[in-house]
Amino acid sequence: MTIETCYSPIQYPLFHNSNAIVVVIDVLRATSAIVTALANGAAGMIPVAGVETAKEWQNKGFLAAAERNGIKLDGFDFGNSPLSYLVSDIKDKSIVISTTNGTQAIEAAKEAKQVVIASFLNAQAVANYLIQQQQDVIFLCSGWKNKFNLEDSLLAGYISELISQNGFTSNCDSTIAAKILYNQTGGNLFDFLAQSSHRNRLSHLNLEEDIQFCLKHNVYNVVPVLNTEGYLTL
Amino acid sequence: MTIETCYSPIQYPLFHNSNAIVVVIDVLRATSAIVTALANGAAGMIPVAGVETAKEWQNKGFLAAAERNGIKLDGFDFGNSPLSYLVSDIKDKSIVISTTNGTQAIEAAKEAKQVVIASFLNAQAVANYLIQQQQDVIFLCSGWKNKFNLEDSLLAGYISELISQNGFTSNCDSTIAAKILYNQTGGNLFDFLAQSSHRNRLSHLNLEEDIQFCLKHNVYNVVPVLNTEGYLTL
Repeated sequence: MTIETCYSPIQYPLFHNSNAIVVVIDVLRATSAIVTALANGAAGMIPVAGVETAKEWQNKGFLAAAERNGIKLDGFDFGNSPLSYLVSDIKDKSIVISTTNGTQAIEAAKEAKQVVIASFLNAQAVANYLIQQQQDVIFLCSGWKNKFNLEDSLLAGYISELISQNGFTSNCDSTIAAKILYNQTGGNLFDFLAQSSHRNRLSHLNLEEDIQFCLKHNVYNVVPVLNTEGYLTL
Repeated sequence: MTIETCYSPIQYPLFHNSNAIVVVIDVLRATSAIVTALANGAAGMIPVAGVETAKEWQNKGFLAAAERNGIKLDGFDFGNSPLSYLVSDIKDKSIVISTTNGTQAIEAAKEAKQVVIASFLNAQAVANYLIQQQQDVIFLCSGWKNKFNLEDSLLAGYISELISQNGFTSNCDSTIAAKILYNQTGGNLFDFLAQSSHRNRLSHLNLEEDIQFCLKHNVYNVVPVLNTEGYLTL
């Protein structure tokens, strides 16, 4: 089995491998929100790239989430704050979601053999799943508007590290770099990311509590998988 | 002044900034070869993306270099081994060059305000030049076929570190990551890169001597700049 890490959705066509499981990562905050919602009882999350598509689903009676540039869009039920999904009204509901980066990455990967959703919140669960599946793996980092970002790469490095003892080898430079970067954090991601562009980008939005939550490791033992109807479910 | 690092030519349009100096990096081996040739007396290097274009120049009487996938192409005077340019017959000659990654990156950046060529061999000279120019900087890593590679990112990190005390700040995540990676090498790049994809890709070609040479720091005090006629000169 091989592991590769793609730092930006714009590069994904260079990595596409019809035998691979694609692990989509958008730590701040789309994949953290999806994991949290499903772990807290939502029946499914329906990722869509466009805001208009999210609105159409909402008009059909679905709960709908939309975020651009860190801000929840007017008229929607949710943004991409994971904490906002810690409510009981999502129980057994399906929620459509469109975000700046994360749902674009899922869209880019949707022809893959399988798409799974990872965040620090469910990293060990994803690692266990990958070890069980014994397939090639591509970590697809959502980045920020197709640029590299630190937090997504760190998670790719962390999960790579978790699975590297189980037959998964990698001479992929971006995976090697991601592991080195993760191993430099000393476990304190919040301080490590203090200088990062995304932390700075989100800081004026008062999202410190959200960020702290998104950086918690292994809170949920769930693995969202994209099904053939385009729903992420457990 | 800002510093940004672009890990792949495919992402370059996301970074383009009409006020920036673009520093093109292809450590193994195009930019190392260009620096070596110019430092050893070549009058100019003419980067071209296509092999056919290189052949046309050769037919006009120019020395011509062409490499694909690490191998010098038949019928050309040179490949991209820097050691092959340590000869006296290049003195005062202009040499056209086409390579797998490096000349493609130069092509991508050619509309920039200024394009300069960096390798470990001339890293300090490039850093001094950037400090003197006081312009925004984009490090453009050639990578490997539009994927991230370690050696180019390490050089971006090294030069960023050299200039970071001189008014150049960066909250660009890829620059931060590159600096962290460089600082992890402990100065022994050859061993650090032992697991990298490019080292493995080139190892069967018996290029150890070339690689050792390309990883030497600050051998040449030269800064190749692309002029308006498309020649790299000192």
